[in-house]
Order: sequence, then structure tokens, then C-alpha cells
Amino acid sequence: MRNLPVPQPGAGEALIRVHVAGVCNTDLEIARGYMGFEGVLGHEFVGTVEQCDDDAWLGARVAGEINLACGRCETCQRGLGRHCPTRRVLGILGKDGAFAEFLTLPVSNLHRVPAGVSDRAACFVEPVAACFEILEQVAVGPQDRVAILGDGKLAQLAALVLTSQGLSPIVVGKHASKLARATELGLRVAHATDLEPKSFDIVVEATGSPSGMQLAIQLTRPRGTLVLKSTYHGPLSFDAAPLVIDELQLIGSRCGPFSPALAALGAARLRPEPLIDASFALRDAERALAHAAAPGILKVLVEVQQ
Amino acid sequence: MRNLPVPQPGAGEALIRVHVAGVCNTDLEIARGYMGFEGVLGHEFVGTVEQCDDDAWLGARVAGEINLACGRCETCQRGLGRHCPTRRVLGILGKDGAFAEFLTLPVSNLHRVPAGVSDRAACFVEPVAACFEILEQVAVGPQDRVAILGDGKLAQLAALVLTSQGLSPIVVGKHASKLARATELGLRVAHATDLEPKSFDIVVEATGSPSGMQLAIQLTRPRGTLVLKSTYHGPLSFDAAPLVIDELQLIGSRCGPFSPALAALGAARLRPEPLIDASFALRDAERALAHAAAPGILKVLVEVQQ
Repeated sequence: MRNLPVPQPGAGEALIRVHVAGVCNTDLEIARGYMGFEGVLGHEFVGTVEQCDDDAWLGARVAGEINLACGRCETCQRGLGRHCPTRRVLGILGKDGAFAEFLTLPVSNLHRVPAGVSDRAACFVEPVAACFEILEQVAVGPQDRVAILGDGKLAQLAALVLTSQGLSPIVVGKHASKLARATELGLRVAHATDLEPKSFDIVVEATGSPSGMQLAIQLTRPRGTLVLKSTYHGPLSFDAAPLVIDELQLIGSRCGPFSPALAALGAARLRPEPLIDASFALRDAERALAHAAAPGILKVLVEVQQ
Repeated sequence: MRNLPVPQPGAGEALIRVHVAGVCNTDLEIARGYMGFEGVLGHEFVGTVEQCDDDAWLGARVAGEINLACGRCETCQRGLGRHCPTRRVLGILGKDGAFAEFLTLPVSNLHRVPAGVSDRAACFVEPVAACFEILEQVAVGPQDRVAILGDGKLAQLAALVLTSQGLSPIVVGKHASKLARATELGLRVAHATDLEPKSFDIVVEATGSPSGMQLAIQLTRPRGTLVLKSTYHGPLSFDAAPLVIDELQLIGSRCGPFSPALAALGAARLRPEPLIDASFALRDAERALAHAAAPGILKVLVEVQQ
């Protein structure tokens, strides 16, 4: 914890007072050295615009997309700003994040939060958008058998997002307490050992563990789709022969579109609050991170403006 | 080498006298113990139907699809017979293959070879079809930057197939003699070290080497497509983080459609014969396999009926 000056918004940027921020596993990884980032952590937030060249945004309650693209390179010109090779990423890469009283973001990254969505729900917009990315990348229909591997917060959020769109995913986990939570949320759950090999059209790997990859390959039917939602650090080792023999399609999936995420939260088709296990004040942010890393814990929030 | 009785065709099967068969790397792998197959090797062939319930096929010069599906299971009912879980595979799994004077196959697996296609060209139909599978799985356009990793026979055949469809792939290799051959075939070639990272829309991994996977990931642009054409045996280890961060799409690709392969060979849009390095008589089939495994050697044929 450090005292820092209030950041000054550049041209086209807004100064945002943070209300609530969420702790993501990526924050825990960065705290352990991933990405070599030194700065303010936190990329899931809701806050109010306090200063901005564009008066229309002043006072608005907003969530913000986390990738700051250059807007000029070939990748940006193709509409792939989230993949801009010189991008900065809020709280992850070259840009101070949301575990602070203030942050700055380009106005073009901001989205207004509908009035009916609480701050505690709104700080889920970023990970909910990341789960909507699955639906941008894969044509999933109601007849498709979908498994989500993992029972942590990302897996359960992905299951809630797919359920909000009329699908019936099965959450595949191994922690009784987390699976019980998923059941409370109305989700279908299973243990991996109870599932037939090659029986799913679509498998979403969200365990965060390299062993999840092998299981994902085992559960996907020939010509099926495997969505890789976990970012593994270091080498991943698995038997790749079934990828080719069964002609699987494997899709890496990272950040996603905010609009459908805000629409689903606004219409209450998706209620993420039951995933919240604890809240900490900003001064206790270090405890918040430690708590988020404890076994059985799902979402932890940092309440900045009480 | 063994003396075996002439195989007897079952109901719906044809007895085929083999003219020429091609040696595939899969044959070499099986000879080393892969798949646990004990039987007659060889799955790339051209031959003549000598016996068949259906008179229309008698005397026809044919190539044959290698997967023998049950036709009844859920996978077959979905039109995915090549992935039938109880399938047998010619010369690979539960079915004697083409390094023999005779083989049997279901008539439904047979395709007539156009008169203008020589036996030496026709025995490439199966691997050419496997390369056409890439075009079934990925929408490739003339503007797409395509790299084919590997300079062996599968990689060069894939490059010839894509070139026959108006595309301009680059063959990426490290063996001077093989790259020279590709150049003689009119293909564009490059060394991996000369290529810019993340600069290809589509990368076809056909090196057969686990290190090819890491290179393929490095060369694929964000949201690009990586086609996995090599079957690796044993665990594959690589840094998977870019798969997710760059949201790559990875597609396993195995057997493919015979019709476009025969059409391309029939129209002479594709001339595979320059890939042939040696031919051996059937009695020298063991020497043929040894020769096919030697450095710098591309296609080796077994001439059964001289």
C-alpha cells in the first residue's frame, strides 16, 4: 500500500473515482510476478466520472474496458484493438488499475452502468464480458452439450452467462463446497469421473490448472470445440494426439464485449452477487488478495468508496 | 514380409488388386509400435477392383477412403463416419492395408480415378485429400498470409494443394535440400528465423516435431488460425499462454474429402509426382520403409503390380 498522487487524465481520458473493485486470479498471478507489472493492480471496477473533457460523461457511473489500444496499427485497423501489440492494460500492463481511489481511462473505453445494477454487481462487468466472449467465438445452440471445467469464480460466472442465454451447461469440479455453491445458483454440476469421454459438443476449460487441458480433450467429442479460458503460465504438457485424431477445435478466449454483459446484468438475467464471499476496505487490499487466494473462496471485493 | 491368403471381401466389399502404394510417416510410426497395430501396413494406394457384388465396379481403377465406419452410431448418423468410435482404418487399425497384392474395402469407400491420372499420381489421393481437409475446416482467402511449417512430404503436399486453389502459402523449413525441392515445385519458401512473429493469418503445423507447435504459436497473428496437421505421439509441451492472450484458434486436421483431391489431380491443377524420391517392388517393402525414414527423402512408393 502506498500513497500516490491523484492521476491526471490525458486528452480523451476521464478521471474516475472508484466505488468497488473485484479481485481476479490474474491479480494474484501478477502479485506473484506474472507479466512483470509494477503499479496499481485491479481491472474489474465500477466508479463515477469526476473529471473529463466531455461534459456528457461527468457524473456518470461507469465500468471500463481494460485494453488501451493505439487505434492506429494494422491490428487496430482490423477492429482488433483488444489485441493491439502496443496496448496497455488497466492494472495488468503499463497502466495503473482500480485498487485505488482514482483511475484514468480513455472515454472510448467507458460504458454507462444501468441504474438498476448495484455497484457490487457492476464490478462483475469485466469478467462477465470475458465470458460473453465465448458466445462471440463459438456458435452454441440449446441442443449442444456444454461442460465447463472448473468450479472457481470464472467457471461459475461462465456457467451463469451461458445459462442467461438459454443454455444448460454442466459445471465440472472437484471441490464439494464450490459445487454446492454452484447448485445453490441453480447450475447443473458433475464430478469429472462421472462423465462419459468424448460426450460434450463444447467444453470450456476454466480450471486454471494444466490438468484441466487433458480432461477437456478427453471430454470433447470428435469435431467438438474446446474453449480455453484459463491462462496458464509456464509450459503446458498434454497428449495432443486426440486434437488431431478427433479433429478438435481449440479456441483461446480472453476479454470480451461489455454491451451484452451490461444488458444481461441490467435485465437481471444474470445475478453474480451470490459469488461474492467477502469485501474489504481499500486500506485492507492486501488482506483482500490473501483472502481471495484461500481455498474455497470465490469473489472478493475491494470497497473503495463506502 | 509374409505370405498371406488373398483376403475375402465381405458383403458390400470389393477385392482390389493394388497397383502402387505410398509410404506415409504414419506407416513408419506404426512400424515403431504406434497404435499397437499388427497387420498389413499401407493406406495410400491405387488399384483395380477384381471382385465385387456390384458389377458396376468390376475392373474400375480406384482409390479408397481409409476409415471403415459402422454407419449406425450417433457419430455416423451425424455424418462424421471418419470419426466413428468403432471404426477400423485401412493399414492402421484392425484392417489389413495396401502393402500387399490385394486388399478389401467397402464399395462405399471407393472412388474412381480419372483416366488422365497416372498410378504414381493416384496413390497421392489420400494425403492430398487430407490436405483438402484444411480448406473444409478453415475459410482461407487469397489475401490471407499462410505459412506451412515443415518441409517434408506432408508440408509440401499441403502447399501444393493450397497453391492449386489460388493461395500463396510459404513453406517454412530448415533443411536446405528439401527447401530447394519446394522451390523447384514453384513454392515460396522461408527459414523460420526470417519471419516476423505473429505475422500470419493461418499457420499449418506439418513438421511432425513438437517444436513446430511452439513456432506455429509464435507465427500466428492474434485471432489467427493454427491448423495442426502433425500427429504427435506422447506428451506435447509448450507455452500455451499466447493461445489465450492472442485468442488463437487451433484446429486439428486429419483425413479429408477424396472428391476435390481427385478433381484437382484430374485437372492437373496439382502434380505430386516430383515429390517421389524412390520406388521399390513389394518384395522390397521393408527397404522402402527404411528408405522413407532416411534424411532428406520425401515420397517413397511401393510398386505392387509392375
